[in-house]
Amino acid sequence: MRTIKLTIAYDGTAYNGWQVQKNGRTVQQELEKAVMKVFKKKHRVYGASRTDAGVHARAQAAHFKAPPGVPLERIPRALNAVLPESIAVTRAEEAPPDFHSRFDAKSKRYRYYILNSRCRDPFSEKYSWRVPYRLDVPLMRKEAAVLKGKHDFKSFQARDKRERPSVRTIFDIGITKRKSSLVIDIEGDGFLYNMVRNIVGTLVEVGRGYFPPGSMRKILENRDRTTAGLTAPAKGLFLEEVKY
Amino acid sequence: MRTIKLTIAYDGTAYNGWQVQKNGRTVQQELEKAVMKVFKKKHRVYGASRTDAGVHARAQAAHFKAPPGVPLERIPRALNAVLPESIAVTRAEEAPPDFHSRFDAKSKRYRYYILNSRCRDPFSEKYSWRVPYRLDVPLMRKEAAVLKGKHDFKSFQARDKRERPSVRTIFDIGITKRKSSLVIDIEGDGFLYNMVRNIVGTLVEVGRGYFPPGSMRKILENRDRTTAGLTAPAKGLFLEEVKY
Repeated sequence: MRTIKLTIAYDGTAYNGWQVQKNGRTVQQELEKAVMKVFKKKHRVYGASRTDAGVHARAQAAHFKAPPGVPLERIPRALNAVLPESIAVTRAEEAPPDFHSRFDAKSKRYRYYILNSRCRDPFSEKYSWRVPYRLDVPLMRKEAAVLKGKHDFKSFQARDKRERPSVRTIFDIGITKRKSSLVIDIEGDGFLYNMVRNIVGTLVEVGRGYFPPGSMRKILENRDRTTAGLTAPAKGLFLEEVKY
Repeated sequence: MRTIKLTIAYDGTAYNGWQVQKNGRTVQQELEKAVMKVFKKKHRVYGASRTDAGVHARAQAAHFKAPPGVPLERIPRALNAVLPESIAVTRAEEAPPDFHSRFDAKSKRYRYYILNSRCRDPFSEKYSWRVPYRLDVPLMRKEAAVLKGKHDFKSFQARDKRERPSVRTIFDIGITKRKSSLVIDIEGDGFLYNMVRNIVGTLVEVGRGYFPPGSMRKILENRDRTTAGLTAPAKGLFLEEVKY
Protein backbone atom coordinates (compact mmCIF):
# COMPACT_ATOMS: atom_id res chain seq x y z
CA MET A 1 0.00 0.00 0.00
CA ARG A 2 1.43 3.35 -1.06
CA THR A 3 0.62 6.57 0.77
CA ILE A 4 -0.49 9.02 -1.91
CA LYS A 5 -0.55 12.76 -1.30
CA LEU A 6 -3.02 14.66 -3.46
CA THR A 7 -3.26 18.36 -4.25
CA ILE A 8 -6.87 19.30 -4.90
CA ALA A 9 -8.68 22.40 -6.18
CA TYR A 10 -12.40 22.82 -5.66
CA ASP A 11 -15.19 25.29 -6.05
CA GLY A 12 -16.92 24.91 -2.69
CA THR A 13 -20.16 26.66 -3.72
CA ALA A 14 -22.22 23.50 -4.03
CA TYR A 15 -20.63 21.56 -1.16
CA ASN A 16 -21.41 21.26 2.49
CA GLY A 17 -17.70 21.65 3.25
CA TRP A 18 -14.88 19.13 3.21
CA GLN A 19 -15.85 16.60 5.81
CA VAL A 20 -18.05 13.56 5.19
CA GLN A 21 -21.42 13.92 6.87
CA LYS A 22 -24.81 12.31 6.83
CA ASN A 23 -26.62 15.16 5.10
CA GLY A 24 -25.37 17.04 2.08
CA ARG A 25 -22.64 16.54 -0.47
CA THR A 26 -19.08 17.06 0.72
CA VAL A 27 -15.73 17.22 -1.05
CA GLN A 28 -14.28 14.36 0.98
CA GLN A 29 -17.26 12.17 0.03
CA GLU A 30 -16.80 12.92 -3.68
CA LEU A 31 -13.09 12.09 -3.44
CA GLU A 32 -13.76 8.84 -1.61
CA LYS A 33 -16.34 7.86 -4.22
CA ALA A 34 -13.76 8.60 -6.95
CA VAL A 35 -11.06 6.58 -5.14
CA MET A 36 -13.55 3.72 -4.82
CA LYS A 37 -14.28 3.81 -8.57
CA VAL A 38 -10.61 3.96 -9.59
CA PHE A 39 -9.09 1.56 -7.01
CA LYS A 40 -12.15 -0.71 -6.55
CA LYS A 41 -11.83 -0.52 -2.77
CA LYS A 42 -13.02 1.84 -0.07
CA HIS A 43 -10.32 4.16 1.32
CA ARG A 44 -10.58 7.11 3.65
CA VAL A 45 -9.20 10.35 2.11
CA TYR A 46 -7.78 12.61 4.85
CA GLY A 47 -7.61 16.34 4.21
CA ALA A 48 -5.21 18.90 5.67
CA SER A 49 -8.00 21.38 6.29
CA ARG A 50 -11.65 20.69 7.02
CA THR A 51 -12.90 23.62 4.98
CA ASP A 52 -16.36 24.83 5.84
CA ALA A 53 -19.50 24.82 3.66
CA GLY A 54 -19.05 27.15 0.68
CA VAL A 55 -15.29 27.64 1.17
CA HIS A 56 -13.06 27.03 -1.86
CA ALA A 57 -9.59 25.57 -2.29
CA ARG A 58 -6.90 26.22 -4.86
CA ALA A 59 -4.55 23.70 -3.24
CA GLN A 60 -6.00 21.57 -0.48
CA ALA A 61 -3.71 18.69 0.50
CA ALA A 62 -5.00 15.21 1.26
CA HIS A 63 -3.70 11.68 1.51
CA PHE A 64 -4.96 8.12 1.24
CA LYS A 65 -3.59 4.60 1.19
CA ALA A 66 -3.62 3.31 -2.37
CA PRO A 67 -3.27 -0.29 -3.43
CA PRO A 68 -0.89 -0.90 -6.35
CA GLY A 69 -2.32 -0.98 -9.86
CA VAL A 70 -2.67 2.56 -11.05
CA PRO A 71 0.72 4.18 -11.78
CA LEU A 72 1.35 7.40 -9.84
CA GLU A 73 1.41 9.67 -12.90
CA ARG A 74 -2.00 8.40 -14.01
CA ILE A 75 -3.77 8.99 -10.69
CA PRO A 76 -4.81 12.64 -11.26
CA ARG A 77 -6.34 11.91 -14.65
CA ALA A 78 -8.04 8.73 -13.42
CA LEU A 79 -9.63 10.53 -10.47
CA ASN A 80 -10.57 13.63 -12.50
CA ALA A 81 -12.35 11.42 -15.01
CA VAL A 82 -14.86 10.34 -12.35
CA LEU A 83 -14.94 13.47 -10.14
CA PRO A 84 -17.47 16.27 -10.68
CA GLU A 85 -16.26 19.31 -12.69
CA SER A 86 -16.09 21.42 -9.53
CA ILE A 87 -13.27 19.28 -8.06
CA ALA A 88 -9.88 18.73 -9.70
CA VAL A 89 -6.94 16.68 -8.52
CA THR A 90 -4.01 18.78 -9.73
CA ARG A 91 -1.18 16.58 -8.45
CA ALA A 92 -0.41 13.16 -6.95
CA GLU A 93 2.86 12.28 -5.19
CA GLU A 94 4.05 9.29 -3.24
CA ALA A 95 4.56 10.28 0.41
CA PRO A 96 6.40 8.47 3.25
CA PRO A 97 4.23 5.62 4.65
CA ASP A 98 3.46 7.52 7.88
CA PHE A 99 2.68 10.85 6.18
CA HIS A 100 -0.49 12.57 7.43
CA SER A 101 -1.82 15.55 5.50
CA ARG A 102 -3.36 17.17 8.57
CA PHE A 103 -0.94 16.41 11.40
CA ASP A 104 2.22 16.98 9.34
CA ALA A 105 1.18 20.36 7.92
CA LYS A 106 3.58 23.14 8.99
CA SER A 107 1.42 26.01 7.78
CA LYS A 108 -1.68 26.87 5.81
CA ARG A 109 -2.28 29.95 3.73
CA TYR A 110 -5.77 31.31 3.17
CA ARG A 111 -6.84 34.14 0.90
CA TYR A 112 -10.00 36.19 1.27
CA TYR A 113 -11.45 38.32 -1.55
CA ILE A 114 -13.42 41.48 -0.89
CA LEU A 115 -15.08 43.37 -3.74
CA ASN A 116 -15.14 46.94 -2.44
CA SER A 117 -17.77 48.38 -4.74
CA ARG A 118 -21.28 49.81 -4.64
CA CYS A 119 -22.06 48.07 -7.89
CA ARG A 120 -22.38 44.32 -8.15
CA ASP A 121 -20.17 42.29 -10.47
CA PRO A 122 -21.66 39.23 -12.19
CA PHE A 123 -18.24 37.54 -12.37
CA SER A 124 -16.46 38.05 -9.06
CA GLU A 125 -19.57 38.14 -6.88
CA LYS A 126 -19.62 34.37 -6.51
CA TYR A 127 -16.09 34.30 -5.18
CA SER A 128 -15.92 37.42 -3.06
CA TRP A 129 -17.72 39.39 -0.38
CA ARG A 130 -19.03 42.65 -1.82
CA VAL A 131 -18.63 45.47 0.69
CA PRO A 132 -20.23 48.70 -0.56
CA TYR A 133 -18.76 51.02 2.09
CA ARG A 134 -15.58 53.08 1.95
CA LEU A 135 -12.82 51.16 3.74
CA ASP A 136 -9.78 52.69 5.45
CA VAL A 137 -7.22 50.21 4.13
CA PRO A 138 -4.13 51.67 5.89
CA LEU A 139 -5.95 51.37 9.23
CA MET A 140 -7.01 47.79 8.38
CA ARG A 141 -3.34 46.96 7.67
CA LYS A 142 -2.20 48.48 10.97
CA GLU A 143 -4.82 46.60 12.99
CA ALA A 144 -4.18 43.35 11.10
CA ALA A 145 -0.47 43.52 11.98
CA VAL A 146 -1.40 43.17 15.68
CA LEU A 147 -2.52 39.59 14.94
CA LYS A 148 0.92 38.46 13.78
CA GLY A 149 2.67 36.08 16.14
CA LYS A 150 1.54 33.56 18.77
CA HIS A 151 -1.72 34.56 20.45
CA ASP A 152 -4.82 33.14 22.03
CA PHE A 153 -7.37 33.64 19.25
CA LYS A 154 -10.42 32.79 21.41
CA SER A 155 -12.15 36.01 20.27
CA PHE A 156 -12.06 34.77 16.68
CA GLN A 157 -13.16 31.20 17.39
CA ALA A 158 -16.72 30.18 16.57
CA ARG A 159 -18.72 29.77 19.76
CA ASP A 160 -19.05 26.20 20.90
CA LYS A 161 -20.21 24.32 23.95
CA ARG A 162 -16.77 22.87 24.53
CA GLU A 163 -13.66 24.73 25.65
CA ARG A 164 -11.03 24.03 23.00
CA PRO A 165 -7.39 25.10 22.86
CA SER A 166 -7.25 28.40 20.97
CA VAL A 167 -3.58 29.43 20.83
CA ARG A 168 -2.28 29.67 17.28
CA THR A 169 0.57 31.40 15.45
CA ILE A 170 -0.05 33.70 12.51
CA PHE A 171 3.15 33.91 10.47
CA ASP A 172 1.96 36.58 8.12
CA ILE A 173 -1.07 38.68 7.29
CA GLY A 174 -1.21 41.10 4.38
CA ILE A 175 -3.82 43.23 2.64
CA THR A 176 -3.45 44.09 -1.05
CA LYS A 177 -5.68 46.57 -2.84
CA ARG A 178 -6.02 46.64 -6.61
CA LYS A 179 -8.78 48.78 -8.07
CA SER A 180 -11.97 47.73 -6.27
CA SER A 181 -10.56 44.38 -5.16
CA LEU A 182 -9.13 43.86 -1.67
CA VAL A 183 -7.22 40.65 -0.99
CA ILE A 184 -6.39 39.48 2.53
CA ASP A 185 -3.71 36.78 2.85
CA ILE A 186 -3.23 34.96 6.14
CA GLU A 187 -0.66 32.28 6.83
CA GLY A 188 -0.52 30.43 10.11
CA ASP A 189 0.33 27.12 11.76
CA GLY A 190 -3.36 26.32 12.09
CA PHE A 191 -6.74 27.98 12.28
CA LEU A 192 -9.67 27.67 14.65
CA TYR A 193 -13.15 27.04 13.34
CA ASN A 194 -14.28 30.20 11.43
CA MET A 195 -11.11 32.04 12.52
CA VAL A 196 -10.15 33.51 9.12
CA ARG A 197 -13.72 34.61 8.39
CA ASN A 198 -14.04 36.18 11.85
CA ILE A 199 -10.75 38.06 11.41
CA VAL A 200 -11.85 39.31 7.97
CA GLY A 201 -15.26 40.39 9.30
CA THR A 202 -13.58 42.29 12.13
CA LEU A 203 -11.09 43.94 9.75
CA VAL A 204 -13.96 45.14 7.54
CA GLU A 205 -15.65 46.67 10.58
CA VAL A 206 -12.33 48.35 11.45
CA GLY A 207 -12.15 49.67 7.87
CA ARG A 208 -15.72 51.02 8.02
CA GLY A 209 -14.93 52.90 11.23
CA TYR A 210 -17.08 50.73 13.54
CA PHE A 211 -14.04 49.91 15.66
CA PRO A 212 -11.57 52.70 16.60
CA PRO A 213 -7.79 52.33 16.10
CA GLY A 214 -6.31 50.04 18.74
CA SER A 215 -9.39 47.81 18.84
CA MET A 216 -7.74 44.69 17.49
CA ARG A 217 -5.38 44.41 20.47
CA LYS A 218 -8.28 44.82 22.88
CA ILE A 219 -10.44 42.27 21.07
CA LEU A 220 -7.56 39.79 21.14
CA GLU A 221 -7.06 40.36 24.89
CA ASN A 222 -10.79 40.02 25.63
CA ARG A 223 -10.77 36.34 24.62
CA ASP A 224 -14.49 36.79 23.88
CA ARG A 225 -16.07 36.14 20.49
CA THR A 226 -18.89 38.62 21.14
CA THR A 227 -16.49 41.58 21.20
CA ALA A 228 -15.10 40.89 17.69
CA GLY A 229 -16.82 41.64 14.37
CA LEU A 230 -19.11 39.58 12.18
CA THR A 231 -18.23 36.39 10.31
CA ALA A 232 -17.36 37.14 6.68
CA PRO A 233 -19.28 34.98 4.16
CA ALA A 234 -17.73 31.65 3.12
CA LYS A 235 -17.82 32.33 -0.61
CA GLY A 236 -14.84 34.78 -0.48
CA LEU A 237 -12.48 32.32 1.24
CA PHE A 238 -9.89 30.17 -0.54
CA LEU A 239 -7.43 27.68 0.94
CA GLU A 240 -4.40 28.60 -1.17
CA GLU A 241 -1.59 26.40 0.08
CA VAL A 242 -0.61 23.82 2.68
CA LYS A 243 3.08 23.70 3.51
CA TYR A 244 4.98 20.68 4.91
CA MET B 1 -37.69 61.73 -23.34
CA ARG B 2 -34.01 61.41 -22.52
CA THR B 3 -31.67 59.09 -24.40
CA ILE B 4 -29.88 57.05 -21.75
CA LYS B 5 -26.67 55.19 -22.50
CA LEU B 6 -26.04 52.19 -20.27
CA THR B 7 -22.86 50.24 -19.59
CA ILE B 8 -23.70 46.64 -18.75
CA ALA B 9 -21.77 43.63 -17.47
CA TYR B 10 -23.22 40.14 -17.78
CA ASP B 11 -22.35 36.52 -17.29
CA GLY B 12 -23.71 35.06 -20.51
CA THR B 13 -23.65 31.42 -19.35
CA ALA B 14 -27.39 31.15 -18.79
CA TYR B 15 -28.51 33.35 -21.68
CA ASN B 16 -29.41 32.68 -25.25
CA GLY B 17 -27.32 35.70 -26.26
CA TRP B 18 -28.18 39.39 -26.32
CA GLN B 19 -31.03 39.64 -28.76
CA VAL B 20 -34.70 39.20 -27.88
CA GLN B 21 -36.10 36.00 -29.36
CA LYS B 22 -39.14 33.79 -29.04
CA ASN B 23 -37.36 30.92 -27.31
CA GLY B 24 -34.95 31.22 -24.43
CA ARG B 25 -33.93 33.97 -22.06
CA THR B 26 -31.84 36.80 -23.49
CA VAL B 27 -29.98 39.72 -21.93
CA GLN B 28 -31.95 42.29 -23.96
CA GLN B 29 -35.22 40.76 -22.74
CA GLU B 30 -34.11 40.95 -19.09
CA LEU B 31 -33.09 44.58 -19.54
CA GLU B 32 -36.37 45.49 -21.21
CA LYS B 33 -38.29 43.80 -18.39
CA ALA B 34 -36.25 45.80 -15.87
CA VAL B 35 -36.85 49.08 -17.76
CA MET B 36 -40.58 48.24 -17.83
CA LYS B 37 -40.59 47.72 -14.04
CA VAL B 38 -38.64 50.89 -13.27
CA PHE B 39 -40.20 53.27 -15.85
CA LYS B 40 -43.67 51.66 -16.03
CA LYS B 41 -43.59 51.69 -19.81
CA LYS B 42 -42.27 49.43 -22.53
CA HIS B 43 -39.04 50.64 -24.17
CA ARG B 44 -36.71 48.90 -26.59
CA VAL B 45 -33.13 48.62 -25.25
CA TYR B 46 -30.64 48.68 -28.16
CA GLY B 47 -27.24 47.06 -27.66
CA ALA B 48 -23.93 47.88 -29.37
CA SER B 49 -23.13 44.23 -29.92
CA ARG B 50 -25.52 41.32 -30.38
CA THR B 51 -23.41 38.91 -28.38
CA ASP B 52 -24.05 35.25 -29.06
CA ALA B 53 -25.42 32.60 -26.68
CA GLY B 54 -22.98 32.00 -23.82
CA VAL B 55 -20.79 35.04 -24.58
CA HIS B 56 -20.06 37.39 -21.66
CA ALA B 57 -19.68 41.16 -21.42
CA ARG B 58 -17.67 43.30 -19.04
CA ALA B 59 -18.86 46.50 -20.72
CA GLN B 60 -21.58 46.14 -23.30
CA ALA B 61 -23.08 49.50 -24.33
CA ALA B 62 -26.80 50.00 -24.85
CA HIS B 63 -29.30 52.83 -25.07
CA PHE B 64 -33.00 53.45 -24.58
CA LYS B 65 -35.45 56.33 -24.49
CA ALA B 66 -36.36 57.04 -20.89
CA PRO B 67 -39.29 59.13 -19.72
CA PRO B 68 -38.50 61.61 -16.94
CA GLY B 69 -39.02 60.53 -13.35
CA VAL B 70 -36.01 58.56 -12.28
CA PRO B 71 -32.94 60.80 -11.82
CA LEU B 72 -29.93 59.73 -13.91
CA GLU B 73 -27.72 58.82 -10.94
CA ARG B 74 -30.39 56.47 -9.58
CA ILE B 75 -30.92 54.52 -12.80
CA PRO B 76 -28.16 51.88 -12.29
CA ARG B 77 -29.33 51.04 -8.79
CA ALA B 78 -33.00 51.00 -9.78
CA LEU B 79 -32.36 48.63 -12.71
CA ASN B 80 -29.97 46.40 -10.73
CA ALA B 81 -32.60 45.99 -8.02
CA VAL B 82 -34.90 44.21 -10.50
CA LEU B 83 -32.33 42.56 -12.79
CA PRO B 84 -31.05 39.01 -12.21
CA GLU B 85 -27.67 38.71 -10.37
CA SER B 86 -25.96 37.72 -13.61
CA ILE B 87 -26.59 41.15 -15.19
CA ALA B 88 -25.34 44.45 -13.75
CA VAL B 89 -25.81 47.98 -15.04
CA THR B 90 -22.50 49.59 -14.10
CA ARG B 91 -23.17 53.08 -15.47
CA ALA B 92 -25.90 55.33 -16.90
CA GLU B 93 -25.22 58.55 -18.82
CA GLU B 94 -27.40 60.95 -20.73
CA ALA B 95 -26.53 60.78 -24.44
CA PRO B 96 -27.42 63.16 -27.33
CA PRO B 97 -31.04 62.56 -28.48
CA ASP B 98 -29.95 60.85 -31.71
CA PHE B 99 -27.28 58.62 -30.09
CA HIS B 100 -27.38 54.99 -31.21
CA SER B 101 -25.25 52.48 -29.31
CA ARG B 102 -24.76 50.24 -32.33
CA PHE B 103 -24.45 52.61 -35.28
CA ASP B 104 -22.31 55.18 -33.46
CA ALA B 105 -19.74 52.70 -32.09
CA LYS B 106 -16.24 53.43 -33.41
CA SER B 107 -14.68 50.22 -32.18
CA LYS B 108 -15.27 47.16 -30.04
CA ARG B 109 -12.74 45.25 -28.04
CA TYR B 110 -13.15 41.53 -27.32
CA ARG B 111 -11.05 39.34 -25.09
CA TYR B 112 -10.77 35.57 -25.32
CA TYR B 113 -9.43 33.39 -22.50
CA ILE B 114 -7.64 30.13 -23.14
CA LEU B 115 -6.58 27.88 -20.27
CA ASN B 116 -3.57 26.06 -21.69
CA SER B 117 -3.41 23.14 -19.29
CA ARG B 118 -3.83 19.39 -19.23
CA CYS B 119 -5.54 19.66 -15.87
CA ARG B 120 -8.97 21.19 -15.45
CA ASP B 121 -9.53 24.20 -13.20
CA PRO B 122 -12.82 24.40 -11.29
CA PHE B 123 -12.67 28.23 -11.26
CA SER B 124 -11.57 29.41 -14.68
CA GLU B 125 -13.11 26.55 -16.65
CA LYS B 126 -16.48 28.30 -16.88
CA TYR B 127 -14.92 31.38 -18.43
CA SER B 128 -12.24 29.96 -20.67
CA TRP B 129 -11.54 27.34 -23.29
CA ARG B 130 -9.23 24.67 -21.92
CA VAL B 131 -6.72 23.58 -24.55
CA PRO B 132 -4.56 20.68 -23.31
CA TYR B 133 -1.99 20.77 -26.14
CA ARG B 134 1.35 22.58 -26.27
CA LEU B 135 0.86 25.85 -28.15
CA ASP B 136 3.55 27.71 -30.11
CA VAL B 137 2.67 31.20 -28.86
CA PRO B 138 5.32 33.14 -30.84
CA LEU B 139 3.98 31.56 -34.06
CA MET B 140 0.39 32.36 -33.02
CA ARG B 141 1.45 36.03 -32.51
CA LYS B 142 3.12 36.16 -35.91
CA GLU B 143 0.12 34.69 -37.71
CA ALA B 144 -2.32 36.89 -35.75
CA ALA B 145 -0.46 40.03 -36.87
CA VAL B 146 -1.45 39.24 -40.49
CA LEU B 147 -5.07 39.98 -39.56
CA LYS B 148 -4.36 43.58 -38.58
CA GLY B 149 -5.77 46.19 -40.94
CA LYS B 150 -8.67 46.27 -43.42
CA HIS B 151 -9.45 42.88 -44.92
CA ASP B 152 -12.27 40.79 -46.26
CA PHE B 153 -12.87 38.40 -43.33
CA LYS B 154 -15.20 36.07 -45.25
CA SER B 155 -13.13 33.05 -44.13
CA PHE B 156 -13.96 33.87 -40.51
CA GLN B 157 -17.65 34.56 -41.01
CA ALA B 158 -20.19 31.96 -39.92
CA ARG B 159 -21.71 30.27 -42.97
CA ASP B 160 -25.06 31.67 -43.98
CA LYS B 161 -27.46 31.42 -46.90
CA ARG B 162 -27.13 35.13 -47.61
CA GLU B 163 -24.09 36.92 -48.99
CA ARG B 164 -23.27 39.67 -46.48
CA PRO B 165 -20.59 42.34 -46.62
CA SER B 166 -17.52 40.98 -44.85
CA VAL B 167 -14.87 43.70 -44.99
CA ARG B 168 -13.81 44.85 -41.54
CA THR B 169 -10.83 46.59 -39.97
CA ILE B 170 -8.92 45.07 -37.07
CA PHE B 171 -7.09 47.85 -35.25
CA ASP B 172 -5.16 45.62 -32.92
CA ILE B 173 -4.71 41.98 -31.99
CA GLY B 174 -2.48 40.82 -29.15
CA ILE B 175 -1.74 37.58 -27.34
CA THR B 176 -0.58 37.63 -23.71
CA LYS B 177 0.66 34.55 -21.87
CA ARG B 178 0.76 34.36 -18.09
CA LYS B 179 1.42 30.98 -16.54
CA SER B 180 -1.14 28.62 -18.09
CA SER B 181 -3.47 31.40 -19.19
CA LEU B 182 -3.47 32.77 -22.72
CA VAL B 183 -5.40 35.96 -23.40
CA ILE B 184 -6.25 37.11 -26.93
CA ASP B 185 -7.36 40.75 -27.32
CA ILE B 186 -8.93 41.92 -30.57
CA GLU B 187 -10.11 45.43 -31.31
CA GLY B 188 -11.86 46.33 -34.52
CA ASP B 189 -14.47 48.58 -36.12
CA GLY B 190 -16.96 45.71 -36.18
CA PHE B 191 -17.09 41.95 -36.22
CA LEU B 192 -18.92 39.44 -38.38
CA TYR B 193 -21.05 36.72 -36.82
CA ASN B 194 -18.69 34.31 -34.95
CA MET B 195 -15.64 36.16 -36.31
CA VAL B 196 -13.69 36.43 -33.03
CA ARG B 197 -14.37 32.80 -32.14
CA ASN B 198 -13.37 31.63 -35.62
CA ILE B 199 -10.13 33.64 -35.45
CA VAL B 200 -9.34 32.20 -32.00
CA GLY B 201 -10.10 28.65 -33.15
CA THR B 202 -7.81 29.11 -36.15
CA LEU B 203 -5.03 30.59 -33.99
CA VAL B 204 -5.20 27.59 -31.66
CA GLU B 205 -4.86 25.25 -34.64
CA VAL B 206 -1.86 27.32 -35.77
CA GLY B 207 -0.39 26.99 -32.24
CA ARG B 208 -0.90 23.21 -32.24
CA GLY B 209 0.91 22.88 -35.54
CA TYR B 210 -2.15 21.94 -37.63
CA PHE B 211 -1.55 24.92 -39.92
CA PRO B 212 2.00 25.71 -41.11
CA PRO B 213 3.53 29.22 -40.83
CA GLY B 214 2.05 31.53 -43.47
CA SER B 215 -1.38 29.88 -43.32
CA MET B 216 -3.24 32.88 -41.96
CA ARG B 217 -2.56 34.97 -45.07
CA LYS B 218 -3.71 32.12 -47.30
CA ILE B 219 -6.88 31.52 -45.26
CA LEU B 220 -7.70 35.23 -45.44
CA GLU B 221 -7.18 35.27 -49.23
CA ASN B 222 -9.31 32.12 -49.70
CA ARG B 223 -12.45 33.94 -48.57
CA ASP B 224 -13.78 30.48 -47.61
CA ARG B 225 -14.90 29.55 -44.11
CA THR B 226 -14.11 25.86 -44.67
CA THR B 227 -10.37 26.56 -44.99
CA ALA B 228 -10.10 28.22 -41.55
CA GLY B 229 -10.05 26.49 -38.17
CA LEU B 230 -12.80 25.54 -35.75
CA THR B 231 -15.06 27.91 -33.84
CA ALA B 232 -13.77 28.46 -30.28
CA PRO B 233 -16.43 27.92 -27.57
CA ALA B 234 -18.55 30.91 -26.52
CA LYS B 235 -17.75 30.65 -22.80
CA GLY B 236 -14.21 32.06 -23.21
CA LEU B 237 -15.35 35.25 -24.99
CA PHE B 238 -15.88 38.62 -23.31
CA LEU B 239 -17.00 41.92 -24.84
CA GLU B 240 -14.61 44.22 -22.97
CA GLU B 241 -15.30 47.69 -24.31
CA VAL B 242 -17.26 49.68 -26.87
CA LYS B 243 -15.65 52.97 -27.93
CA TYR B 244 -17.49 55.99 -29.36
